[in-house]
Amino acid sequence: MTPSSRLDTTFAALADPTRRAILARLALGEASVTELAQPFAMSQPAISKHLKMLERAGLISRGRDAQRRPCRLEPQALADANGWLEGYRQFWETTFQRLDLLLDEMKAEKGMKPKGE
Amino acid sequence: MTPSSRLDTTFAALADPTRRAILARLALGEASVTELAQPFAMSQPAISKHLKMLERAGLISRGRDAQRRPCRLEPQALADANGWLEGYRQFWETTFQRLDLLLDEMKAEKGMKPKGE
Repeated sequence: MTPSSRLDTTFAALADPTRRAILARLALGEASVTELAQPFAMSQPAISKHLKMLERAGLISRGRDAQRRPCRLEPQALADANGWLEGYRQFWETTFQRLDLLLDEMKAEKGMKPKGE
Repeated sequence: MTPSSRLDTTFAALADPTRRAILARLALGEASVTELAQPFAMSQPAISKHLKMLERAGLISRGRDAQRRPCRLEPQALADANGWLEGYRQFWETTFQRLDLLLDEMKAEKGMKPKGE
């Protein structure tokens, strides 16, 4: 997979609340499919489908223990997605600073104390 | 939309190379559909479809000028997606630090200088 198509599958895998909740659970430690299925009140096949998408995106890996095959969170894909978004940090920080300034000016006009004073 | 379903549409909108390229172009300044279609060698209806997904996800907004309706990057959705990923920063930083330590130990065993010395 190219870095761009890797980002496609990562962002697509993150576009689901159950898959994001599975990642949040795995951030606390590895877990089997049975352990993952329990809190979600979902069938094991339904959870397995989500796990396949997460595995294809490189967001999780499965252990070799044939019985349990525990799932583990893999950090690289998350770090790469974060890296892409970080490219826009300056953009939103500048925008939010401009909004803060505007708010301060509006408060000053109303005779209120500007923020941070 | 709830914050969770907002994240669903944001991540789904980001899961496409053309849409990510459109956002990269709009980070340089607002642009009309015609201006956006040009570098992508795509038809205007194809670009418009992508813009609709980006607009629904709150990643862009359209100007009111009826003729041109320029597209503008909106920072909040990007900042929110980044905020979600930031929750995992400690996880990948710890993992990468462990890998660095392991690599240093392997180098030390081979009689090579560890990293950073």
